[in-house]
Order: sequence, then structure tokens, then C-alpha cells
Amino acid sequence: MNVSMLNINIRKTEKSRIHPLTKDNLVFGKEYSDHMLVCDYKDGEWQTPGIVPYEDFSLSPATSFIHYGQAIFEGVKAYRQPDGSVSVFRPHDNWERLNVSAHRMGMPELPEEIFMEGLRQLIELDAEWVPGEAETSLYIRPFMIAMDEFIGVRPSDTYRFAIITSPAGAYYNKPVRIYVQDHYVRAAKGGIGFTKAAGNYGASMLPAAEVRKMGYDQNLWTDAVENKYVQEIGTMNVFFIIDGVALTPDLNSGTILAGVTRASIITLLQENGIKVEERPISVDELIEAQKNGKLQEAFGSGTAASMSFISDLTYKEETMHLPDVATWSISPKIKVQLDDIRYGRVADTHGWRFKV
Amino acid sequence: MNVSMLNINIRKTEKSRIHPLTKDNLVFGKEYSDHMLVCDYKDGEWQTPGIVPYEDFSLSPATSFIHYGQAIFEGVKAYRQPDGSVSVFRPHDNWERLNVSAHRMGMPELPEEIFMEGLRQLIELDAEWVPGEAETSLYIRPFMIAMDEFIGVRPSDTYRFAIITSPAGAYYNKPVRIYVQDHYVRAAKGGIGFTKAAGNYGASMLPAAEVRKMGYDQNLWTDAVENKYVQEIGTMNVFFIIDGVALTPDLNSGTILAGVTRASIITLLQENGIKVEERPISVDELIEAQKNGKLQEAFGSGTAASMSFISDLTYKEETMHLPDVATWSISPKIKVQLDDIRYGRVADTHGWRFKV
Repeated sequence: MNVSMLNINIRKTEKSRIHPLTKDNLVFGKEYSDHMLVCDYKDGEWQTPGIVPYEDFSLSPATSFIHYGQAIFEGVKAYRQPDGSVSVFRPHDNWERLNVSAHRMGMPELPEEIFMEGLRQLIELDAEWVPGEAETSLYIRPFMIAMDEFIGVRPSDTYRFAIITSPAGAYYNKPVRIYVQDHYVRAAKGGIGFTKAAGNYGASMLPAAEVRKMGYDQNLWTDAVENKYVQEIGTMNVFFIIDGVALTPDLNSGTILAGVTRASIITLLQENGIKVEERPISVDELIEAQKNGKLQEAFGSGTAASMSFISDLTYKEETMHLPDVATWSISPKIKVQLDDIRYGRVADTHGWRFKV
Repeated sequence: MNVSMLNINIRKTEKSRIHPLTKDNLVFGKEYSDHMLVCDYKDGEWQTPGIVPYEDFSLSPATSFIHYGQAIFEGVKAYRQPDGSVSVFRPHDNWERLNVSAHRMGMPELPEEIFMEGLRQLIELDAEWVPGEAETSLYIRPFMIAMDEFIGVRPSDTYRFAIITSPAGAYYNKPVRIYVQDHYVRAAKGGIGFTKAAGNYGASMLPAAEVRKMGYDQNLWTDAVENKYVQEIGTMNVFFIIDGVALTPDLNSGTILAGVTRASIITLLQENGIKVEERPISVDELIEAQKNGKLQEAFGSGTAASMSFISDLTYKEETMHLPDVATWSISPKIKVQLDDIRYGRVADTHGWRFKV
């Protein structure tokens, strides 16, 4: 379907809740823009999408996803550009990944034009909700849920896709302390670790709370077989700079998320002449590198967090301290380059900016 | 808190939807009784529960569990007794397991009296919804969801516990064909396989659909490390009778559900003089036993399904056929004993019936 052929029913809010959005009054995920996109799936096809005022869903207590977790989401961000316009960062990649998740969770794939044109029109209508100060953005949350009013365990026949948006400041603002998790497991080969399924996140709440009590910010997950190979950090992919080479876990085992920020960083690293290796990385290798003074930099990456530098990693009784971030030569430079592209301060040579 | 101290606000429906409930018009999970129990958690404590007409929830699209799957449930059944009264089967065990799930998912534990007395009063009020024909029951679905209107990844501060009920006929009615799954994995050690978390079920939809297309009814999951040890079947625990001994996977690895039906069957088997071994069971052991004519019986167990006899199991290219169910001497007898207890046809020597 051509974009121009997509019909979207628009019902505007009668009273906007917009107010001046400053860094001081932005709290990620607490406030939502005036409108949302809603598109239902029934009788084997996606219906006409609607843009409507942000309002509660009326859901039967027997709605399938409430009980059986057929629920997936995406995370995307829109950035205010120097000329006042708005660009969304690589949303097409999020559309593709949404459908990877949908397939694994037994849900219908969403047509490209509903995602892309729906998102475009929604952001266009709520453009005032994109904040303009440094490090702020509009967080965009597309999600899909199984809607049958039925508590038998089987894939739903009906679904809802929706997009809500929330103005956001910075997510993490100081280097994070990491606990290398050797008890709890996030995902196994053959499971759903590569999807953005709701269930992956609920399972991480207790492990995250436990390490926070111990003074760490996040878990670095390890593999389900040997608890030996690192996977991802809480809600982020992970990178290490060892002896000038950038290492990040490969996607082959299907246990980690194929981050859009991860892919962007790999591209930027390579363009900066840094060798990138996507491969299994054992905790032993990290410990060894740290002992030899070769573990130079480490960070998490994700849409919500962008890049979060790591100050130290603790595995069992052992703590690996990274050099002070002020001495790092690679990751901070990549972060600036990534932000410059997002915020439109440099030319978009990769075609990563989607103009609203 | 003493049961008599629990206050429940009751708002009855203005117009009951009750109608004659016969085997022919009962479809599991499609129709719900007149009322439901709802109890909200906020400010660090559970509020006064309410019994209200079954109606939609009004939920913000940003409700935490929609995105991050902090959602758990239970399955319980109530049975019409010969004297016309209603008994619920071992609900106290479901209350205990709900709290095991709650703990692992970072959710608050539910006080005993809210579950037990809430359930009692709900079933008492909707007693007409408990059907009376053979093999029918009232399916009871307690569940808990994270209610914060917040899309940051962290445990919610507010929760909702609810109970809905649905009159049910038989779940499976003929021996099931099983596919021994060696590609997809349900749960790993360190994960949430032992919980009744929504996410565990969503992840099983695609694997279940794929084997159904191949002509099988359910997957028999294997372990995440070697795909060698059997775990559970779709939504049921699994038992094998080999050479007169009953085998079922142990609960030690935390990857399978501690079924209430499973525990009941173990008790009944032992009372019938059958040796029960809870231990790791490899697919190789099953194949070997079948080749030697020692694999005598096999079945799945669960609240929804009760006991589902297995006709055959297929592992890769190999199909193990069980002897015809008509020749089985153990499982059918246990099923009759279990049903007799549930339906009040024999004395309740175990204290398993909870009178409403």
C-alpha cells in the first residue's frame, strides 16, 4: 500500500494538556502527549487506524494478553532539530523488529504503512510535545496486545496496535555500576530473548531490585547454559573496548535484543576506524583483560538510555574497575557523533533521520 | 487477620446473565459469571476488596503490566457436590503458589484472607454459575497485574488482584499426541518457569501452533541446557508409568510449575501403592523404556485439563506409541479417584475440599 493510500481517522482532543516542556519538569514515562494511535486487528486483517485523544482502554478482565502475555512493544525517539522540525531516529528498524517479535509471539505482522505513516501523522499532530532542550526527546512507545476475551491458552484472533508518546529528559546521567548476574537468567536459546516481549521485562524486576539493594545500577546477564558468556545489561546492549577493539555479544543465539542503537554504534565505531567484533564474550575474558590493563571502556546502549558508560563490573567477589571516563577516547566520541545525528547537528549521511 | 474481620464491599449486578448451564452450551473461557472480585494495592497495602458486576477494566495505555509483563495468575476449580453444595479444590495451595509467583515477579504478596475469603464470598454469590453435569466445573481465575501508569522499567508501586470465574465443561477429551520439543525452550534455570507468569504462556503460542500444524496436540518441553530432559507439557505437568513406577520431573531446577494437580496425583499414586520418583527424566530413558515395552502409561496433569492421557510422543524422527488406554491399569484409576474427591463422591480424607 502506498503511504498516500492509508486512511487514518483523526479525532482531536478538545483541550490540549500542552505546557512549557523544560528539563526540570520532564520525567520519563510519567506524562503522555495529547493523542495516541490505535489500530485493531480482527477478521484476519488490520482495520483503519485512528488517532484519538490519549485515554484509557476499556478492557475485559478476561482479555487474552492480561493472562498469557501475548504483548510486545518498541521504543523509538523523536528529536527536535535545529530548524525547529522533528526527526524520528530509525523508526523503520523498529517496525521491522516489531514484526520479528510479533512472529515469535504468534501475533500478526503489522503493515509498514500503518507503523510508519501512523507514527508520522501522530508525531506531526503532537509536534508541540517534542521538547527542545539539550538531551531531551519525545519517547515513542508502539505496542501490540492480544485482545480476545478468552482465557484458553491459544493465540488470540484479535489484536490491538497502539502508539503513545511521552516527552523525556535524559535517562541515565552518570556512569553505572554493573553486577554480573550468575544466578538469575534472562533468556535461553530457543526462548524469546531476541524479542521485545513484555514477559522478558517482568522477569527482570526482582533481579534488578536485588542488585540495586546491593548498590549496583543494573545486571549484566549471562548465558543460560554456563552463566559464563555476557548477554546484555538490564534494558541495554553492552559494548567493551579491549585493547582498542570494540567487542559486543553476537546475535546468533537469539538470546539478546538486536538493538537499533547497538547497530548504529557498530556503524559509527567502524567509520571511526575501530575494529568491531560481534562474538561470544566470556566473563573470564573481561577479568583477564582488566587485570592486564586492556579493559579500556565499557557501556550499555539502548533507545531509552542512549549510551550509558560503565564505572565498574562485579562478578562474584571480584570487582573490575574501568578507568575514569574522562580518560576514555572512543565511547564519548561515538556518543557525541550519535547525538549529533539524532539532534540534526550534522548531515544525515546514513539515512537514519525520518522527518515528520 | 481473622476471616471474620475481612470487610468486602459488595455491589450486586442489577440483572443476572444466568441461564441453564448444560454440557452442550459450556465452552471453557468464553462466558463469565455475574460477578468478580477486585482488590487494589497502593500506598504499600492492599485496600478493601470489592465484589462487583463482571465488567471491563478501565486501563491507561501506559499501565505498567501491559508493557513489562508483571502479570501472574492462578487456575482453580469449583465443583458441584452431590448435596447441591459447592466445593473448591485445594485453593489454599493456589494462594501459596500465587505468592511464590508474586515474589519472583517483584510483586507484593497477597494476604491469605483476601484470597480465601474473597474467593469464598465470590463463589457463594455466583453459586448458580457452578454447573452440575458430569465433568463440568466452575473455572476460577485469580490474577494480579502491575497498575502504575508509568513506562519506565521498574517494579510498579500499585497492583490489582482480581478473580473472575467461567463455567467449564471438559478441557481435553481424547488422548493427546505429543511432540518432544528440541528447538524451542520454555524456561531455563534462573528464569521464571516455576511461576504462573503471563510471559511463560505467550512464549509458547508459536511453538504450540507449529506442532499443531504437524498434527500434534502439545509440546513436551525439554531443558534449556541440553534439550535432553523432559520438563512439562504445554500447560500441564507430565507423568510416565515405566515398569510399574510413576516418574515425573522434579521441581529442583525451578523450570517447571509445581502443579496442585501434580501434587494430588503423587499423593494418590503413593496411596495406591505405586512408587513415585520425582527426578530428571531424559528423552533417551523414555525411548529405551518404550523399546523394551516398559513405557506403560503417560499423561499430562493440570487444573484446566485434570488428567490428559497420552497416545504417543514423537522425538525427532522417532514416535513412541503408548499401549491403548483401555489396557492401562494405573492412570485411569487415579483419575477416577481424583474426580471422586473433587465431585464429593467420596470422603475428603486429605482435606482437599474447600466448602463454599
